[in-house]
Amino acid sequence: MAQVGIILGSDSDLPKVKNCFETLEEFDISFEIIVSSAHRTPEETKEWVSSARSRGLKAIIAVAGGAAHLPGVVASHTTLPVIGVPIETKISGGLDSILSILQMPGGIPVATMPAGRAGGINAALFAVNILGVENASVADKLDQYRKKMAEKIAAKNADIAAQGYKKYIAGLEG
Amino acid sequence: MAQVGIILGSDSDLPKVKNCFETLEEFDISFEIIVSSAHRTPEETKEWVSSARSRGLKAIIAVAGGAAHLPGVVASHTTLPVIGVPIETKISGGLDSILSILQMPGGIPVATMPAGRAGGINAALFAVNILGVENASVADKLDQYRKKMAEKIAAKNADIAAQGYKKYIAGLEG
Amino acid sequence: MAQVGIILGSDSDLPKVKNCFETLEEFDISFEIIVSSAHRTPEETKEWVSSARSRGLKAIIAVAGGAAHLPGVVASHTTLPVIGVPIETKISGGLDSILSILQMPGGIPVATMPAGRAGGINAALFAVNILGVENASVADKLDQYRKKMAEKIAAKNADIAAQGYKKYIAGLEG
Amino acid sequence: MAQVGIILGSDSDLPKVKNCFETLEEFDISFEIIVSSAHRTPEETKEWVSSARSRGLKAIIAVAGGAAHLPGVVASHTTLPVIGVPIETKISGGLDSILSILQMPGGIPVATMPAGRAGGINAALFAVNILGVENASVADKLDQYRKKMAEKIAAKNADIAAQGYKKYIAGLEG
Amino acid sequence: MAQVGIILGSDSDLPKVKNCFETLEEFDISFEIIVSSAHRTPEETKEWVSSARSRGLKAIIAVAGGAAHLPGVVASHTTLPVIGVPIETKISGGLDSILSILQMPGGIPVATMPAGRAGGINAALFAVNILGVENASVADKLDQYRKKMAEKIAAKNADIAAQGYKKYIAGLEG
Amino acid sequence: MAQVGIILGSDSDLPKVKNCFETLEEFDISFEIIVSSAHRTPEETKEWVSSARSRGLKAIIAVAGGAAHLPGVVASHTTLPVIGVPIETKISGGLDSILSILQMPGGIPVATMPAGRAGGINAALFAVNILGVENASVADKLDQYRKKMAEKIAAKNADIAAQGYKKYIAGLEG
Amino acid sequence: MAQVGIILGSDSDLPKVKNCFETLEEFDISFEIIVSSAHRTPEETKEWVSSARSRGLKAIIAVAGGAAHLPGVVASHTTLPVIGVPIETKISGGLDSILSILQMPGGIPVATMPAGRAGGINAALFAVNILGVENASVADKLDQYRKKMAEKIAAKNADIAAQGYKKYIAGLEG
Amino acid sequence: MAQVGIILGSDSDLPKVKNCFETLEEFDISFEIIVSSAHRTPEETKEWVSSARSRGLKAIIAVAGGAAHLPGVVASHTTLPVIGVPIETKISGGLDSILSILQMPGGIPVATMPAGRAGGINAALFAVNILGVENASVADKLDQYRKKMAEKIAAKNADIAAQGYKKYIAGLEG
Repeated sequence: MAQVGIILGSDSDLPKVKNCFETLEEFDISFEIIVSSAHRTPEETKEWVSSARSRGLKAIIAVAGGAAHLPGVVASHTTLPVIGVPIETKISGGLDSILSILQMPGGIPVATMPAGRAGGINAALFAVNILGVENASVADKLDQYRKKMAEKIAAKNADIAAQGYKKYIAGLEG
Repeated sequence: MAQVGIILGSDSDLPKVKNCFETLEEFDISFEIIVSSAHRTPEETKEWVSSARSRGLKAIIAVAGGAAHLPGVVASHTTLPVIGVPIETKISGGLDSILSILQMPGGIPVATMPAGRAGGINAALFAVNILGVENASVADKLDQYRKKMAEKIAAKNADIAAQGYKKYIAGLEG
Repeated sequence: MAQVGIILGSDSDLPKVKNCFETLEEFDISFEIIVSSAHRTPEETKEWVSSARSRGLKAIIAVAGGAAHLPGVVASHTTLPVIGVPIETKISGGLDSILSILQMPGGIPVATMPAGRAGGINAALFAVNILGVENASVADKLDQYRKKMAEKIAAKNADIAAQGYKKYIAGLEG
Repeated sequence: MAQVGIILGSDSDLPKVKNCFETLEEFDISFEIIVSSAHRTPEETKEWVSSARSRGLKAIIAVAGGAAHLPGVVASHTTLPVIGVPIETKISGGLDSILSILQMPGGIPVATMPAGRAGGINAALFAVNILGVENASVADKLDQYRKKMAEKIAAKNADIAAQGYKKYIAGLEG
Repeated sequence: MAQVGIILGSDSDLPKVKNCFETLEEFDISFEIIVSSAHRTPEETKEWVSSARSRGLKAIIAVAGGAAHLPGVVASHTTLPVIGVPIETKISGGLDSILSILQMPGGIPVATMPAGRAGGINAALFAVNILGVENASVADKLDQYRKKMAEKIAAKNADIAAQGYKKYIAGLEG
Repeated sequence: MAQVGIILGSDSDLPKVKNCFETLEEFDISFEIIVSSAHRTPEETKEWVSSARSRGLKAIIAVAGGAAHLPGVVASHTTLPVIGVPIETKISGGLDSILSILQMPGGIPVATMPAGRAGGINAALFAVNILGVENASVADKLDQYRKKMAEKIAAKNADIAAQGYKKYIAGLEG
Repeated sequence: MAQVGIILGSDSDLPKVKNCFETLEEFDISFEIIVSSAHRTPEETKEWVSSARSRGLKAIIAVAGGAAHLPGVVASHTTLPVIGVPIETKISGGLDSILSILQMPGGIPVATMPAGRAGGINAALFAVNILGVENASVADKLDQYRKKMAEKIAAKNADIAAQGYKKYIAGLEG
Repeated sequence: MAQVGIILGSDSDLPKVKNCFETLEEFDISFEIIVSSAHRTPEETKEWVSSARSRGLKAIIAVAGGAAHLPGVVASHTTLPVIGVPIETKISGGLDSILSILQMPGGIPVATMPAGRAGGINAALFAVNILGVENASVADKLDQYRKKMAEKIAAKNADIAAQGYKKYIAGLEG
């Protein structure tokens, strides 16, 4: 039974949030994926969302770009936490997606994540944060994850110190 | 039986588009008004929209601000022409409303009007333009309306010429 | 006799709205195309627009970018419904085109479509929506079109479920 | 023992999110408030956040404007869900606050709420949504809250129908 | 016979560029004023512009806001220098007006002035600069004008030095 | 003796306004080119500008990007007409360049041209417009130029009509 | 002998950075003030700046709005640290001022401060930071200043705890 | 012992500010480099910053993109001058990075540099400007650096004059 549901406005958004799926797998969180549009398949969207809590989902990640209504429309059909991920576009790099997800009216909250590569990762991690509120083992895994991030940075600093910045940059660009 | 339906995301938007109602009345176009939110009352919105064509409506004007999903959500439930009016906000004077209404995905069109005072008037006039496509008497009224606009400007120029610009400005600032 | 007229500010915009023409053809709507600039050929623009209603046109699609005056200038010469399509530019991905088309003064309405690929499709569909107001067979085709969109999404979900998201993404990227 | 912690970058932000506190009280959620700046009191901020989970907090709401680093800095010290509320500013009505909270790097998630009046309400509701994941009675209260919102809108529509739009607008403006 | 023509999209813009008229008067440049809209009175606009050179005008100042097509439409009917003045609006303080005037296509130039109070003054001064190209006495007056500006600033510095900044600020605020 | 002076903040801007030089040559207008920065060579800039009128220049075109101070600094040293051309940048495609050139204070006018390819052409044409104010033969050439533009568009329409839009687009893309 | 020089593009900016002067006085840093425009008094600006180092100045604060060229022009005449303060405007609350100061070309650095009330304070503090690099007593005063800031926040938290948030907010609003 | 410390939020930013390191080397200024994130390694960041003054650093350059909190977080732990460099992003080319660094609250100053290539160079030069306040030999080197910049531009003008603009552009493009 899935703990997290991920709904995307278009299948073309799947590769853009691949790191969302991978991050959930890294934490052993089960998830289900559906492509469903707020506008092209409003009924399917509503049905999938309305039964989410009874299916056992604990958080929903909604991914959309442009007039990115999907997260808000999802939130209109559930009181589960809804996490919105704005897809980057040509309008200022995604300002349309960001504002369409962010500027929800009082009463129907959506949690907006960054546009771009960080959006998928952070949506997954935020869902894990929610699961970790009542689950100490998930909270422990989150602490491990943060430690690993810090260790990676420490290793990079050791490399820069050992090689000098010129070689290190050459290596990055190579 | 109403020809035009007007749906607003909040009753606080009613005064902001009063000129929409007045313009429709000026053209003797019957209309109905409903306050219904894309997010707070998604079911009521869907029901009102889904039966719009069978109730005789020929165009729908949807008014919303911020994450202004209402026009897009309305358009997802009908193939009648949907005209979106963005309410001015603090984000660049309404850029969130504009982009949320405008940047619809391919397949579900919404016709976006200007933000601000012109939005209500032009939404009404655009609905009348649609009605005038097949109705010569409506098209005639539209021609009269344009002539009157031009005459008002001519009268103003006569005033400016008669009074001089200084007195005219003083009169405006009066 | 054409039902829809399409006017473009530059022939370089033709490929950007090819899907507009294709969508109209999909609905068997006859159309005529003209390249005419608001600024470089104001007389030709005016003549083509002024006679549009008498030539039998029922809606005009005007495509322009930058200081995209064409849709507004077209609307100043007709009371037919004018649908504006903003071409993407370097200024925030088309914010100049969008605002130049959108922010029309009260009295002369233009219906603005999204910038980018969706603009051409939705301009065509919105014109069809207008034709469908009084034509039940057009309205039926619009319903079919929507059903097909939903079926395509359902098929994609079946694929994702069958292949798993990793293979599906690999297929998209392949 | 408080369930939700609210941290504000400045005491001048307290009135701007008063509705956040009121909404939490409406749901009988206990909360604690602290004013602490990411920049002026980084140590106090860190201490308050680092001990949040052990003090029993289940979510943190961080409110800030301008270079609104507070939500991100809070999230750097905890894996509890952190909800950021951007304060409206003069830069496009809060675009600096929004982007400073939103555009977090991969690894440290923050859930961004809308700028303005809706931000405080939705931050509170989103915290309640999180608490409702594992608590059926909280989830029930959320359903009641939504029903009440819909009933208020229905009552307004009854009023508009009874009075006509002109009187209703006059009443709003009165 | 007027040397400079000033065309405004709306009589409500007259007070906003009063300093344009006053600056021209300060330089003894004769001018004529007309209110004429690119959209509401396209014929009147065209006629006034097309005969401008033969009437003796040497520069045209066009003032407009929002979808500010007027300067571009004026420029489409003349090869006299056209100076555009954007009126401040709610969209980022006038970004719609600025971009609609500025982003003209290659072939039809418009000289854009600042939005706001400086727009009217600088439009007048730029017209005088043009007249001063071939007229040494006008060029001399421009030099005098600049000297006076510098003298005013020198006088202010003397005041600040004499009073101290505190009293000077109090005087400004008084 | 040159009639128009062109000053560029960087030699890397030369290719971006090559069409400026070509347009002036098309009108047989003599010009001189200098690379000089408002910031890196303020003295050289001042000297070149201060002697411009006595050298016989009748207009100055100043090209710059980013914090594009050059046109304003040039205008501070002369009362000749100064035409500013903003170079496209990464900040919203050139919004920094545009606003730095456009938003001059009252007293020192600069005529801003569009960002991008049209900027160079229109700067040249606007300089020619200024020269044409007192020179009927230049004004005639400008009329010829406009006629040619219209004829090119007419030829394109003939092509589209002859080939059909599909072949024409294929030709453009080919 | 003054240690810090403050140059403002307009005397109307004096009240907007009064807190800059007060902050410098709080640290007993001597300063001189001049009003001088990059455009209206370029010679006076250059003279004042060019002699700044020999007069004993160690940092220059330049305050300007709109096409805020003053900080960059100042920096073109000195290698002392130049600190730019953008004045808030109507264009997105000061985006023109910010970008005109910020986006300097490589070679001529300007240190940009925030727009608005914080700009004046932080410009003063940053100048003090520079003076504190080699002066331990100044550095000590900076530490004291930070401690006082933290103590004020602690006092506020004590107040909020003692009064409850409702009374505290009422007190702020009172 | 290093005089300047450079802290980067990510090692992927190293190549983007390579010219910062090279510029410091050109002035024989010793520096140290660390990769440390405001969010992923807050403790390491704090430790490195807190001991900066005692290690002999005289200025800190902090490089970050997106929600670029690093410069502000660095400034919260030191009263040394902190110079922030915004990395270009997709959001309007770096508007998120710029505003997150720029809009610091009163009390904790950060000196913001331009986004893009100029950011690294100018951060280095601004640090050198600070060192030059009390060090005449550094100030002399800065004068030499400026002279060389001017000489390079003079050489380019000689080339353009010698070759003609067409060959020179061809050379640039070649």
